Amino acid sequence: MKGIAIVSGGLDSVTMAYALKGVGEDLHILSFDYGQKHSKELAYAEYCAEDLKVPFTKIELPIKDLLYGSALTDYSIEIPEGHYEAESMKDTVVPNRNAIFLSLAYALAVSTQSDFVAIAVHAGDHHIYPDCRPGFLGAFELMEIEATEGHSKRGLHIIAPFIEKTKAHIVTVGSIHNVPFKDTWSCYKGGLLHCGKCGTCVERIEAFQIAEVSDPTVYQEEVGNDY
Amino acid sequence: MKGIAIVSGGLDSVTMAYALKGVGEDLHILSFDYGQKHSKELAYAEYCAEDLKVPFTKIELPIKDLLYGSALTDYSIEIPEGHYEAESMKDTVVPNRNAIFLSLAYALAVSTQSDFVAIAVHAGDHHIYPDCRPGFLGAFELMEIEATEGHSKRGLHIIAPFIEKTKAHIVTVGSIHNVPFKDTWSCYKGGLLHCGKCGTCVERIEAFQIAEVSDPTVYQEEVGNDY
Repeated sequence: MKGIAIVSGGLDSVTMAYALKGVGEDLHILSFDYGQKHSKELAYAEYCAEDLKVPFTKIELPIKDLLYGSALTDYSIEIPEGHYEAESMKDTVVPNRNAIFLSLAYALAVSTQSDFVAIAVHAGDHHIYPDCRPGFLGAFELMEIEATEGHSKRGLHIIAPFIEKTKAHIVTVGSIHNVPFKDTWSCYKGGLLHCGKCGTCVERIEAFQIAEVSDPTVYQEEVGNDY
Repeated sequence: MKGIAIVSGGLDSVTMAYALKGVGEDLHILSFDYGQKHSKELAYAEYCAEDLKVPFTKIELPIKDLLYGSALTDYSIEIPEGHYEAESMKDTVVPNRNAIFLSLAYALAVSTQSDFVAIAVHAGDHHIYPDCRPGFLGAFELMEIEATEGHSKRGLHIIAPFIEKTKAHIVTVGSIHNVPFKDTWSCYKGGLLHCGKCGTCVERIEAFQIAEVSDPTVYQEEVGNDY
């Protein structure tokens, strides 16, 4: 089957791409540069496409102008530290982000007559982000049946392999598919190293611990402030 | 009520903006530069916002890379001439365009805590463009309830005042609201003047005739090839 994989360069989406390619899917990797502070991750998305030898498309999406008050794009707001599920992480919500990403991915899917669009949302995202929930993805799929009728390949649908899985499960899947975890980026701060403190770093560290998989990530926390 | 109006600078969307402002809505005009050949229309969108004294946001959307085979963005494909409803006009379909535009408009609507997103699709679009049909808009609205739950203003919805109306009806509405029709652009070719021959020009000419409203547009057809 032929499909578009939305890959940010983070641990989840890179693992999804390796796993789908590993079971023989014909992938096209799509990434978005939307002015995120951690745009560093995009280099890892491109590396993922190179390593898997699949087409790569990066779309520059100047949506910052549409988004007020999200810590992921607004440089006047500090990235909150602490646990990923904490209330403060709500500041990292970019409204409607996945609807925007999926709409663009569907355009590419129609153009390339693909069978699926893959997105790496996981169960840990549900609490904070409404556009990471199963109800959203189901409604999106129905909407696209209407939107692309007569133009898309029959049966075009969304794949979200991790939607009911934990991040620890994703690490386990990644270790089976030999994902080069060191070549994935999670930290929202986008420094030289993973900070080890922000919500998504804390979540990453925990996932490796729970999965009992060795974590190759070097965290700022461990090496001190000299980096 | 506060709302985002998607305005291309064409006759339909500009008329919608004047009509909504005319009944007292608090508008924010949003336009997209997606590499359309007729990007000339965007200047008219900006003029519309200026004239109505409402905020204007233009988003550069490099989606050409995602869209193969649409005459509206691909310079290797000639814009078909003839009637708007003809088979050849199918070449002008940009897959998923309205889902992309509406997703971005909803992001702005959430950020600005707006009550509605307005789009100027009309009945004449239904035949060719699936993403101009009532079924699509209904499905999109339901999807966004899921996508923006807890973030959008309660009751955020889509307004499509012309969805069951003809273009002639839109001209009638425009004449009531004193729309400066000469400051709207329809031609897909994007020349110095409206060509008078392409599907959307033919449709525009017919609409004024049926509505029995004087058409201030100067067409290339009439003035010859000296312009």
